Amino acid sequence: MEWPEFELFEVRDGDGWKKLSSKEVYADPYIQIERADYQTPNRQEKPVTWTVAHRKCAVAVIPVLEDGRFVLISQERLPVQQILWEFPAGQIDEPAGHLSCQSIAETAVRELREETGCEIDPERGTLDSLGWFFPSQGFTDEHVYLFRAQPVCVVSRPESDGSEYISAVRFVSAEELRRMIADNEITNALTLALYARMAAKGWI
Amino acid sequence: MEWPEFELFEVRDGDGWKKLSSKEVYADPYIQIERADYQTPNRQEKPVTWTVAHRKCAVAVIPVLEDGRFVLISQERLPVQQILWEFPAGQIDEPAGHLSCQSIAETAVRELREETGCEIDPERGTLDSLGWFFPSQGFTDEHVYLFRAQPVCVVSRPESDGSEYISAVRFVSAEELRRMIADNEITNALTLALYARMAAKGWI
Repeated sequence: MEWPEFELFEVRDGDGWKKLSSKEVYADPYIQIERADYQTPNRQEKPVTWTVAHRKCAVAVIPVLEDGRFVLISQERLPVQQILWEFPAGQIDEPAGHLSCQSIAETAVRELREETGCEIDPERGTLDSLGWFFPSQGFTDEHVYLFRAQPVCVVSRPESDGSEYISAVRFVSAEELRRMIADNEITNALTLALYARMAAKGWI
Repeated sequence: MEWPEFELFEVRDGDGWKKLSSKEVYADPYIQIERADYQTPNRQEKPVTWTVAHRKCAVAVIPVLEDGRFVLISQERLPVQQILWEFPAGQIDEPAGHLSCQSIAETAVRELREETGCEIDPERGTLDSLGWFFPSQGFTDEHVYLFRAQPVCVVSRPESDGSEYISAVRFVSAEELRRMIADNEITNALTLALYARMAAKGWI
């Protein structure tokens, strides 16, 4: 299988943007918070101070079976105290400046395997880029690279590690996926973003 | 105009979920970070410790003109150092437990007016609920209530306050909106989530 080529995103100065100074006010292994002063394209003379949460970037994958159905997982999400139906996703450990298309795509393939137990067909399968998205652009630099994996087949059971718990895997038709989104049963940004890109491209 | 009725979301114990203890490790007016221990539906015996970022909940609105076009704004987003095309959105100041459908809907109408300069037609207009979404469910309890405002008309110019800067307003057809999403020109979760719900309901 060939690795997809796609544009990489990185926060950087230029085009009227400049981070003038910053101060870290909190940090742990999961999040770093800084107060920073910015020059922006429309505010060159009067810098703006902002609170920014830094997080690792991530991947999310819409897995498509041979018969056209999609693979959803249900996952315990502690911040909202809910079990959510989602597409597989995960964080990338390397810092944004050290990433390549291949290392991002490899993370997508690994998360697909770990969270759903699915693998991309080695002969006919493709991993296609669907761009990226910002989950909460007023607050964090987190960005998530999106992919379609097609066709995939089930080769193992999903793995729940110490911190994550996947309680079910479900195969849904395009019509059932559409209904779950319309009825507010699917409520997480990464699954909605994958659906929006698929719908906009005419892939669903 | 009648206010829409919709289900409200609030993080709470029950159905196997229990927050056993928590400790605030950072707080400012924009974000509060806590380390908390949770009992979960699948982990009753062995509680899990998690870092959670608390944020105000928010609203986002897809404004539809009489002729069917949609109203986008371009906004400076400091955490990603980009100007993004988005639908209007904003945070709700009251805590989640004190919210009603009407207070959420009123925030949506106010953000629509401030950010786009548009108002819902007082005679024939409706504000319709499109549920809610979680921007980053592994990390924050932030949730965003989604609405469609239709038809809207332009009554003023958008307001940029001290912290936000809206540099343009643009009217796009359904086809142009679709293309911008397909081509990764629209990259923010709230706009993609609104599009996903609109597409799934057959409203676009």
